Amino acid sequence: MNIHQPAQRARVAAGALALATRAVKDAGLHAMADALLARTAEVLVGNQQDLAAAQTSGAPEAMRDRLALSQARVADAADALRQMAALPDPVGEVVRGSTLANGLQLHEVRVPFGVIGIIYEGRPNVTVDAAGICLKSGNAVLLRGSSSAARSNAALVAVLRDALATAGLPADAVQLLDSSSRDSAKQLMRARGLVDVLIPRGGASLIQSVVEESTVPVIETGIGNCHVYVDAHADLDMALEILLNAKTQRPSVCNAAESLLVHEAVAPAFLPRALSALAGAGVTVHGDERVRQYGERVLPATEQDFSTEYLSLDISAAVVDSLDAAVTHIAWYGSGHSEAIVTDSAAAAREFTARVDSAAVLVNASTRFTDGGEFGFGAEIGISTQKLHARGPMGLPELTSTKYVVTGAGHTR
Amino acid sequence: MNIHQPAQRARVAAGALALATRAVKDAGLHAMADALLARTAEVLVGNQQDLAAAQTSGAPEAMRDRLALSQARVADAADALRQMAALPDPVGEVVRGSTLANGLQLHEVRVPFGVIGIIYEGRPNVTVDAAGICLKSGNAVLLRGSSSAARSNAALVAVLRDALATAGLPADAVQLLDSSSRDSAKQLMRARGLVDVLIPRGGASLIQSVVEESTVPVIETGIGNCHVYVDAHADLDMALEILLNAKTQRPSVCNAAESLLVHEAVAPAFLPRALSALAGAGVTVHGDERVRQYGERVLPATEQDFSTEYLSLDISAAVVDSLDAAVTHIAWYGSGHSEAIVTDSAAAAREFTARVDSAAVLVNASTRFTDGGEFGFGAEIGISTQKLHARGPMGLPELTSTKYVVTGAGHTR
Repeated sequence: MNIHQPAQRARVAAGALALATRAVKDAGLHAMADALLARTAEVLVGNQQDLAAAQTSGAPEAMRDRLALSQARVADAADALRQMAALPDPVGEVVRGSTLANGLQLHEVRVPFGVIGIIYEGRPNVTVDAAGICLKSGNAVLLRGSSSAARSNAALVAVLRDALATAGLPADAVQLLDSSSRDSAKQLMRARGLVDVLIPRGGASLIQSVVEESTVPVIETGIGNCHVYVDAHADLDMALEILLNAKTQRPSVCNAAESLLVHEAVAPAFLPRALSALAGAGVTVHGDERVRQYGERVLPATEQDFSTEYLSLDISAAVVDSLDAAVTHIAWYGSGHSEAIVTDSAAAAREFTARVDSAAVLVNASTRFTDGGEFGFGAEIGISTQKLHARGPMGLPELTSTKYVVTGAGHTR
Repeated sequence: MNIHQPAQRARVAAGALALATRAVKDAGLHAMADALLARTAEVLVGNQQDLAAAQTSGAPEAMRDRLALSQARVADAADALRQMAALPDPVGEVVRGSTLANGLQLHEVRVPFGVIGIIYEGRPNVTVDAAGICLKSGNAVLLRGSSSAARSNAALVAVLRDALATAGLPADAVQLLDSSSRDSAKQLMRARGLVDVLIPRGGASLIQSVVEESTVPVIETGIGNCHVYVDAHADLDMALEILLNAKTQRPSVCNAAESLLVHEAVAPAFLPRALSALAGAGVTVHGDERVRQYGERVLPATEQDFSTEYLSLDISAAVVDSLDAAVTHIAWYGSGHSEAIVTDSAAAAREFTARVDSAAVLVNASTRFTDGGEFGFGAEIGISTQKLHARGPMGLPELTSTKYVVTGAGHTR
């Protein structure tokens, strides 16, 4: 495979997309949704082949569940496209504007990136989601999915491309790259100048390898070693509710809590209740020595535990001497995703939010709220844990750049 | 050298800087300016040693000029620090805020990056400038200058660090890395997790090597192959003034024009005048065949000419059949910095500004206006030609990230 050809086609498509009006792009999204519903059978045939191969190769159940499509899941994906159509168009927004002292009119205007590369794992719903969000934001997309979903993705992309063409948009706005070897991913990561930005979506090792190898600018998403800190001044009932929600409401996602920190002043009152409630919810606690005093079923926590994004019904736990110690612990072990403090103290809340250097810092609220949908952004392509360009949930504006348009009347310096 | 130690010290300093109030940071900037004035002699001694070494090694005059400091240049640098103190603090700005349907209060707040690495060439004024702009934006900085300016930079950084300590700020907010080998630059480029962003400042080859080798996110600055397009509907007097200004007012900078495109409809009326005026201003024109019909002293343009950022009194020139051809030429040869159209046609201006994919697109104004100072941003760390994070002149807000602060009253999902 040579990335040059699909990337060049994507660039041409991007030129057209950048000029497409919202009305045209929204019609494209509805056409994609219609086509997915009309041709679900075709998509499910491809998906069945992938699932059969996964079964043969002994893929774990969780992996097969992520891979599986159904009539309902395809309908959900189509619905998501229609919801994107209802969102405002980020392109053309004037971010900043003024008339300079010399009369020059300055406008900073939101424009699409151009060509976005997405490298992802075996979740075919990402194919539809990424195609939709890129179209809405005026970007062409090069999709490099997992070989385990190759037939599902091929069927989906065929449907989406036909729909684009029907709507008068360039089919090459959505292209699927060969996933049979690592070659296409490698080429995509080295396609600086052809591809404007690369977004890896998947586990820690995928993201790490993209960050290491890519010369194309990368937006890092998704590792969440999220903390709940129960302050000396916490309402302990509230703390328990937030802890249980953050840990158990959906343990497999990046904004679920993975670590509990308890101020020593409230440890005797809080930990017996918390450990019992966690055990009742099926959660295994990996605690430091001070935590283990309060519960027999607490496993000893290793250094590794405090660094781990479990994504399961496990949580690490430690007693800390102070808010300062909690902040230091988070700085050392955290991944910069979401950290919550439970406190009634305005001073503690102010210090925690100022000092914790994460994409989201929550006061008296569950870490589960760090989410584009919850934040009211509509579509979300992922949650950035880096500081450059976008941090936290990324919606449509985060998939754009800006340019300055400067209008004069013969102005010279 | 091991980057780990200075980077760790920088992280600690960054933690303090992030919490420093504007008043404290501004006092630090004034202390730096005062110290530079008080200890200019010391700085000039270091600079004289660098200049003597440059002379011995036969460095070209332009390079020695960039390296040279004087009482006046140091005073200018001190002035620039005081001007930064007068600018608003970007940190703490609420970029976006709302109360969600469930009552959660959402604030997106501007915060410093943390630790910024700057890799630059033999311009000691960048040392002061970068230290000031990073302090004002709440960031610690690791400076990796050129070995040719090692003694100048060491003297400057010693003065700046003492001033920070005097002002009650951590001296490690400004650190100079060893420049005696490539090792420190290499380590800086691989210090992902320790360094939040890397900004190379210098020529094309420096920037290219940083982009290729860095795993730390990079903001690319500065290559400007800027175009002036004279449209079929241009006021030709205005076009001539803009062309001369863009090419000759300061040819050595990135926003100077490097290429002239003329619509064929006005070529016979415009090019004889333009070529004569350019020759009168000492500019060598490298033209295509159609341009060469209008002037005997026009050298033949090669493909290479159209791709070149001359930074000298040279310009490439071509006649184009249409606005579309001009846009295509710019997309192919341009560097995405600044392109100007001269036209009286609203339709042509609209099409050009929509289709040209550059950091700045100017209508009836010189490309020389693409500049942080001209745009009213005050301090400028460079002009970004990439699309991620910042595009165009980068002021203080471009040296920050944001975080979400979410406040609830026991909210769970």
